[in-house]
Amino acid sequence: MSGIPNAIKSWYFAERPKGDLDDTTLALRTVPLPELADGEILVRNIYLSLDATNRVWLSDWDSYMEPVRLGEPMRGFIIGEVVHSKNAQFPKGALVSGLSSWSDYVVTNGEGFQTYTGIAGLDLAEAFGILTVAGPTAYVGLVEIGQPKPGDTVVVTAAAGAVGALVGQIAKIYGCRAIGIAGSAEKCAWLTRELGYDAAINYRTEDVDKRLAELAPDGIDIQFENVGGDILDSGLKHMKNGGRVIICGLISTYNSPGETAPGPKMFRNVIMRRLRIEGFVILDYLARYPEFHEKLLGWMRDGRLKYRLHVVDGLENAAGALKLLYTGGNHGKLMVKIGDPRA
Amino acid sequence: MSGIPNAIKSWYFAERPKGDLDDTTLALRTVPLPELADGEILVRNIYLSLDATNRVWLSDWDSYMEPVRLGEPMRGFIIGEVVHSKNAQFPKGALVSGLSSWSDYVVTNGEGFQTYTGIAGLDLAEAFGILTVAGPTAYVGLVEIGQPKPGDTVVVTAAAGAVGALVGQIAKIYGCRAIGIAGSAEKCAWLTRELGYDAAINYRTEDVDKRLAELAPDGIDIQFENVGGDILDSGLKHMKNGGRVIICGLISTYNSPGETAPGPKMFRNVIMRRLRIEGFVILDYLARYPEFHEKLLGWMRDGRLKYRLHVVDGLENAAGALKLLYTGGNHGKLMVKIGDPRA
Repeated sequence: MSGIPNAIKSWYFAERPKGDLDDTTLALRTVPLPELADGEILVRNIYLSLDATNRVWLSDWDSYMEPVRLGEPMRGFIIGEVVHSKNAQFPKGALVSGLSSWSDYVVTNGEGFQTYTGIAGLDLAEAFGILTVAGPTAYVGLVEIGQPKPGDTVVVTAAAGAVGALVGQIAKIYGCRAIGIAGSAEKCAWLTRELGYDAAINYRTEDVDKRLAELAPDGIDIQFENVGGDILDSGLKHMKNGGRVIICGLISTYNSPGETAPGPKMFRNVIMRRLRIEGFVILDYLARYPEFHEKLLGWMRDGRLKYRLHVVDGLENAAGALKLLYTGGNHGKLMVKIGDPRA
Repeated sequence: MSGIPNAIKSWYFAERPKGDLDDTTLALRTVPLPELADGEILVRNIYLSLDATNRVWLSDWDSYMEPVRLGEPMRGFIIGEVVHSKNAQFPKGALVSGLSSWSDYVVTNGEGFQTYTGIAGLDLAEAFGILTVAGPTAYVGLVEIGQPKPGDTVVVTAAAGAVGALVGQIAKIYGCRAIGIAGSAEKCAWLTRELGYDAAINYRTEDVDKRLAELAPDGIDIQFENVGGDILDSGLKHMKNGGRVIICGLISTYNSPGETAPGPKMFRNVIMRRLRIEGFVILDYLARYPEFHEKLLGWMRDGRLKYRLHVVDGLENAAGALKLLYTGGNHGKLMVKIGDPRA
């Protein structure tokens, strides 16, 4: 049958990293294509989303979901085209997305997959890159958990990342002041000149603590935390009474094995400033995605929500690309183009 | 005039402690009684409340309120009798309570003071000891911030302390399971045999982490934290998804100067378990005290809220008594009897 491969190429979890990801963590292997059972579909993957939480799945911690086991294909969100189907719900030619694996093709019974029927005005990469993880994460974290009010000062860490870039813009839509923390002058300029952030701090060249004192002299109402470690410590120092610290990610600690990551030094400010620190996992909110997408798409179409995609070409480059998230080497939403977007 | 002294004896903040309180931190001094100005009253103090947060007031951190300054009288909640009045709101003979100083007499314009008219069935020590700080703190923390539901597993640290003893009993009233952590076999026995705690862990002789795994195999819904440090770390390991960590006190860290107290090691569980960590200060809730007192008094009269008072006799013993809070040497609500309760 034309378009059906003989084999499937995937990245496998080969060796648990002790700290930073290294070249032996994941290994690209090819296995023969299995026969499709009734109810299964074969998906030709087009895009793979790379997310900071991927590192968590490779740890042996007790986490928010089962880790990837050694010897299994690496897990990731993908969107692709059904090229063979024994499941009437997902006919041949349909575009489908779901939490799957880092592979050129996947065989699945479709559990947890959604059909994608296109969104006017967005190409496939934009829709997948912004609406699968980053957009809903930014919305739920800032709006539902952070409860922003007009005039609030919102600090966003990893502000030039896929989620952070959106958070600052949503903060502005809600009438807040947005201060971004990012890792280069180029990123900081992008935040203030393109995205409408009121100010940006380059944590590699500036004293974050001192700059926060200058930029938020009355304190921070909401800290949207993607990083943890020293950056979070600085934020905790400058929180206002009744402030909210939204823990979306702690990327600076994900490479620390076991319980070795130090906790926030200024933890006592939870009392002194009457703080609420709250974490969340976007997978808990999948049922509410239509509601979030409606909001996000409205803003995207009005030009109030800008973004950039960092698309790495070729499945074979996925493992190398993932490291960019932990060094700050990506510029915008990081994803891998595995196959031709056009069927 | 009879009953009016010539001088006032007070504990003064003499030397900032570097870590633990020591004998030179506070010093007892006598100053001449000033002339009362219009609007002022002279109060003969009867009881002084000693509270874990007293140590915070002696630090130079940025805290939830102004610290006590070196050379000033030490701050504390007192109840006493008006023995001379130039303020019609507080006539001679009235009992008044408020945030004042560690003194045998105080001169005040009455700002922040309340008149105490007696509560049926409670003697002055009980009313002052339970309703001034400990009771409202336990109620607000557990009920308003913790939002307990029937069947929830509630872990209380410093469970035999003034606040903790009440928290477990209120948890039981709300249909929860209560597990207490305390520092002696005697305290643990008191928790389970007298107060109705379902279980107690002696942190000095037992492995808290292991015991929590046994006693809360499905995880902790609410951790009511008075201690911090290793005890909090153990709790964070065993939190259930969506759990709430109420930060009432971090007494184990109050003797650590500046930013040296280590943060919670298992902080990443804020994400992994989708936790809400929330701190509060009872002084923010003074306007709602009548509502809390009604609840607490109802339970006290029904015999559902037991407590014990640890009353140290004599103002001159106040500084020594305060240290008991940081070594776990007190048994129940710690307070100092400064003068005769009977007018």
